Amino acid sequence: MAKHRSQKGTLFVISGPSGTGKGTVCKELLKENDLKLSISMTTRQPREGEQNGRDYFFVTREEFEKNIAEGNLLEYADVFGNLYGTPKDAVVRQLERGRNVLLEIDVQGALKVKEAMNEAVLVFLLPPSMKVLQERLSGRGTDSEEVIQRRFREALNEIRLLGEYDYYVVNDDLEEAVADVAAVVRAESRRVPGKVKPIIRDYEEEDN
Amino acid sequence: MAKHRSQKGTLFVISGPSGTGKGTVCKELLKENDLKLSISMTTRQPREGEQNGRDYFFVTREEFEKNIAEGNLLEYADVFGNLYGTPKDAVVRQLERGRNVLLEIDVQGALKVKEAMNEAVLVFLLPPSMKVLQERLSGRGTDSEEVIQRRFREALNEIRLLGEYDYYVVNDDLEEAVADVAAVVRAESRRVPGKVKPIIRDYEEEDN
Repeated sequence: MAKHRSQKGTLFVISGPSGTGKGTVCKELLKENDLKLSISMTTRQPREGEQNGRDYFFVTREEFEKNIAEGNLLEYADVFGNLYGTPKDAVVRQLERGRNVLLEIDVQGALKVKEAMNEAVLVFLLPPSMKVLQERLSGRGTDSEEVIQRRFREALNEIRLLGEYDYYVVNDDLEEAVADVAAVVRAESRRVPGKVKPIIRDYEEEDN
Repeated sequence: MAKHRSQKGTLFVISGPSGTGKGTVCKELLKENDLKLSISMTTRQPREGEQNGRDYFFVTREEFEKNIAEGNLLEYADVFGNLYGTPKDAVVRQLERGRNVLLEIDVQGALKVKEAMNEAVLVFLLPPSMKVLQERLSGRGTDSEEVIQRRFREALNEIRLLGEYDYYVVNDDLEEAVADVAAVVRAESRRVPGKVKPIIRDYEEEDN
């Protein structure tokens, strides 16, 4: 019955407002789960410690626009003046190999991915409360006060889009949040819809 | 955000052909998961080691029929001459308390439960192969050769009903099968549909 397991992979999109801990959750998730991280392309400057090809593909605006023109982006968006996008080829290639792909992305991007690939599974990462979100945004220390306030105001508008998502995870305790997402990944691989005929056929063939 | 977690419970129905290990999977699952086992009512004789009120409610046919008449069975069926049923009251009471309920039941019963409670989550337990199923049925040593053969023939017809289920789990390695079902239970508690409005309201109220 190994055949049941060697099916097409699923694209899991982890998304949520800035400051909900998408990056940390994804990093922990990748440690113990058989997931391939989708690496985004961006025109923003690398932060300290970030590596090209590992954290992002850091490109010039010109290179980014060439990728748009060639139709190689599953989604792209202008976030606070920087362009971010998801290279399509790499994701599709992994899915067809049966690998599950993890994509960490902002809310607007997640919705575009769902439009482009309806079978993608969207997970919304929620802060424990608006108060905690504000603290996390301020405590990060990488952004100006203006950016922090803009992100905070945007967060509630993004939470209002929850209905477009498949799952929600409250990132209160990191370990629990990671276990929640890991359960979603595992459970999704056991969902019946779309797999009924090949599974039944396996047992029927053996019986004849 | 504790409010998100104190929602209504879900009824998980673990089902599959005889010999797929429903009982063992459920027993292991209950050890580490916050699930309340639904205890069935039956007119069959207790097997060695089985206790009334723990394994089943063992009743006379007369008592069973009284429960049918009073509408206290979520489903009931005649299986090889014995009546089996699921007391409705107890299940509904637990769900309203926010407890998840686990119901171990044959395929026909599972489909009736789904008819009566569409929000129930159905998990189909599959054998690794028809060959292994035959071995397991024979090796159990509690049934006559005639019953074993009847169950084996019935298994493929039951597998053909897989499309009515939400999830499938292949019981090859017990630990993996239990982890699969546990993931389904955890992931289902994080599903968005039906919870959008109360969640958004929590964050909006805090923001105002």
